[in-house]
Amino acid sequence: MARNEERRARLADAAIGVLADEGARGLTHRAVDRRAEEPAGTTSNYFRSRGDLLAGVVARIGERIAPDPAAVARLRSAPPGRASYAAHLRYVVARMTASREVALAWFEMRLEAARRPEVAALMRETLVAGFEADVAYNASAGLPGGPAEIALFHYALDGLLLDRLTVSVDPATSTDAVVDALVEGLLPDA
Amino acid sequence: MARNEERRARLADAAIGVLADEGARGLTHRAVDRRAEEPAGTTSNYFRSRGDLLAGVVARIGERIAPDPAAVARLRSAPPGRASYAAHLRYVVARMTASREVALAWFEMRLEAARRPEVAALMRETLVAGFEADVAYNASAGLPGGPAEIALFHYALDGLLLDRLTVSVDPATSTDAVVDALVEGLLPDA
Repeated sequence: MARNEERRARLADAAIGVLADEGARGLTHRAVDRRAEEPAGTTSNYFRSRGDLLAGVVARIGERIAPDPAAVARLRSAPPGRASYAAHLRYVVARMTASREVALAWFEMRLEAARRPEVAALMRETLVAGFEADVAYNASAGLPGGPAEIALFHYALDGLLLDRLTVSVDPATSTDAVVDALVEGLLPDA
Repeated sequence: MARNEERRARLADAAIGVLADEGARGLTHRAVDRRAEEPAGTTSNYFRSRGDLLAGVVARIGERIAPDPAAVARLRSAPPGRASYAAHLRYVVARMTASREVALAWFEMRLEAARRPEVAALMRETLVAGFEADVAYNASAGLPGGPAEIALFHYALDGLLLDRLTVSVDPATSTDAVVDALVEGLLPDA
């Protein structure tokens, strides 16, 4: 990574930390400068407007939760079906719960979308692209589940993540067991 | 309602508005005074600490999304089963999406629980009591679904609400149709 790109990523990481710790209202260029221990004005040089900063956050979240290609290859080597789909979803949830700060920042961005039309536009673009990529992935991997089912999994896994990142109504059941139960009920037969 | 109770409820409503519009970090006693157009110090008289204010918010949210007893009686008059359970859940989701401000404040409280142990304790108590009441309701109404299934519905409906309150991945499918599909997949036979 070029030096500029490294610094840009480090500033976006600091913005993610501010979002997770202080919420969307705490996210200012100055707060990111302070958290990154950079001179005042640094973040403004890399991300001119608040919209640029939020777009930088969303792009960086995508990088930080990107799947490991070796893990994806392993998942794709199993015969496509219920068990394989459950393994895919367990891997998604595990990545998000392991990146607690990233996942909390993501929820903050979701809520900020309810307040600001420009954030709603950014998040709509990102969420719809992710959703379409999931639908295309299932089709290319021969996995069961079309758009309708994939939307149901989106809802259920978002709620599960929120439960596991904050306060759980059912902490005795493992996250993997919840994912398996959702796949059992919501995935059609191949 | 006694005059003091009315004012307390009005202040809690103002706090809900602040949470929805500005997030948890914006919630101060002064911000609530301003939103309620009360003299500085009023909110502090009714809710001494920030913990008292948050507990007041949670209690008021419970009042504002409480079901209409006549609607519950109608729901309970149908034979218990898949269709009746779906009608119950559609009513839950409709109440929350209709009270957009309340629902957004609720999500803010969920995220604040990830940051502050005292908020986590308050939300744990509230969420677990709600969950146990749901389990007891199903049993007393003869509805299918025990704790494991009710937890799955909690996750899925939380994620669905977040989707519908913010930016949706599948706006073409009605919220009621999503609830019906979840019940179809996740509810065991009676």
